[in-house]
Amino acid sequence: MSLDWQQLNQEVTALLKEARQRVLEKMQAPLTVDEKTGRKDLVTNVDKGNEQFLITGIRRIDPEAKVLGEEGFGDHLTDVKGRVWIVDPIDGTMNFVKQQDNFAIMIGIYQDGVGQLGYVYDVMNDALYHGGPQLDGVWANQELIAAPANLALRDGLIGASGPLVIHDVAHMQAIIHASAGMRIYGSAGIEMINVMRGKTLGYISHLKPWDFAAGQVLLNTLGVRVSTIDGQPLNMLSSNLVLVATEKAQRDILQIEEDDVSL
Amino acid sequence: MSLDWQQLNQEVTALLKEARQRVLEKMQAPLTVDEKTGRKDLVTNVDKGNEQFLITGIRRIDPEAKVLGEEGFGDHLTDVKGRVWIVDPIDGTMNFVKQQDNFAIMIGIYQDGVGQLGYVYDVMNDALYHGGPQLDGVWANQELIAAPANLALRDGLIGASGPLVIHDVAHMQAIIHASAGMRIYGSAGIEMINVMRGKTLGYISHLKPWDFAAGQVLLNTLGVRVSTIDGQPLNMLSSNLVLVATEKAQRDILQIEEDDVSL
Repeated sequence: MSLDWQQLNQEVTALLKEARQRVLEKMQAPLTVDEKTGRKDLVTNVDKGNEQFLITGIRRIDPEAKVLGEEGFGDHLTDVKGRVWIVDPIDGTMNFVKQQDNFAIMIGIYQDGVGQLGYVYDVMNDALYHGGPQLDGVWANQELIAAPANLALRDGLIGASGPLVIHDVAHMQAIIHASAGMRIYGSAGIEMINVMRGKTLGYISHLKPWDFAAGQVLLNTLGVRVSTIDGQPLNMLSSNLVLVATEKAQRDILQIEEDDVSL
Repeated sequence: MSLDWQQLNQEVTALLKEARQRVLEKMQAPLTVDEKTGRKDLVTNVDKGNEQFLITGIRRIDPEAKVLGEEGFGDHLTDVKGRVWIVDPIDGTMNFVKQQDNFAIMIGIYQDGVGQLGYVYDVMNDALYHGGPQLDGVWANQELIAAPANLALRDGLIGASGPLVIHDVAHMQAIIHASAGMRIYGSAGIEMINVMRGKTLGYISHLKPWDFAAGQVLLNTLGVRVSTIDGQPLNMLSSNLVLVATEKAQRDILQIEEDDVSL
């Protein structure tokens, strides 16, 4: 079956806009917040409800596809053959709970493990980043966005995850020291938007497939590298220590890893 | 002389709006960027030009006052007697240079060392936070804002400065561990706006008077504590290791300092 990707894009966009409205409405009532692995790993009624809503919509749009969702309402995948939709109903749940801001709804669409379309929706700013090879570009709502400048590590800011910095995993502190400074925004989706916009030149964090699937498609389309911290392709079915970086900054960071530099 | 604070507020607001327009216009041309103490401590032609513009305006509005400015175009102060205006023409210069976003123009007005009015202007969002005891409240543009919830440390996110985290100054890592997580936004003004908005419950950083003067007035007006990391009043003429926190979180953090807890 050959897909009409333009048509599919319109349907996904409509689905996400409806999902956003529902999330905004649910934010008017108190959230039900539960801990997953601990008090810093949260899930709410909105994460769960939104995943169910999105998966129902995806089944309607693309009944043949498999769906991988953060909260477990999708399929159990053992491989990435065929068309796979990867869904994060609320990325940055801690921000969602504590800030009611700086979180994203994300969908990545892959074919045999290759990214086709990505959607990262900054809910509170109503900014839907979407695109990929099937659309020949990346848009912020209606605006086609340009590739960020190919900055070297020393010339830009880098996004990070707090625990990696504190425990100095994978020479994080040396990488930050070599950059112009670190920023921490608390949501993979928001961090990846910042890279697309050239506000940071990269981002390093331990991420699950639903955290990086959508952003990887968009970033690659803009020429930004997404790999493991060792420069290898990401495993789409497990956790990865993810390095997002401009081409030059990726080279600089891989060199720090190779040299095994500590601060 | 008794001041008409309402009148003065209107004049300062008009001055800041004009300053913002000038900054936005200058951002259309390439910046001239110089290093101050090193490659991570920058100053631009816009910092300098805006401080000169602001100080000229302040001299017109309040000719009797003393002015302390980050870039040195004000007076040399040896005490804080009388009325003192403290000016940061561009707070978050690294963000200004690298992101063209997430920076602030700030003015604090003090009388004999006591805060009277504060102005923190988020330039790119056109959001002017202003107020203080002389206005009986804090406004974001025309909107009177409510005091943030008095959260305990474990119940909220905390803003931090990167170097303090990496070098674990003043038990930063234990404080972060005890919180719900850290965020790093890279501008004292933007961090303080986040505390006013309840998006973070506090902020810890090494700051100069122009970095905290305006925010301190606004935060105190909202019941948020601003002190040294030991709970002492800030020295208005020197650097301080500044702790901004809700009343409960301040108590929690001072206890960590007292217990001398390390991770």
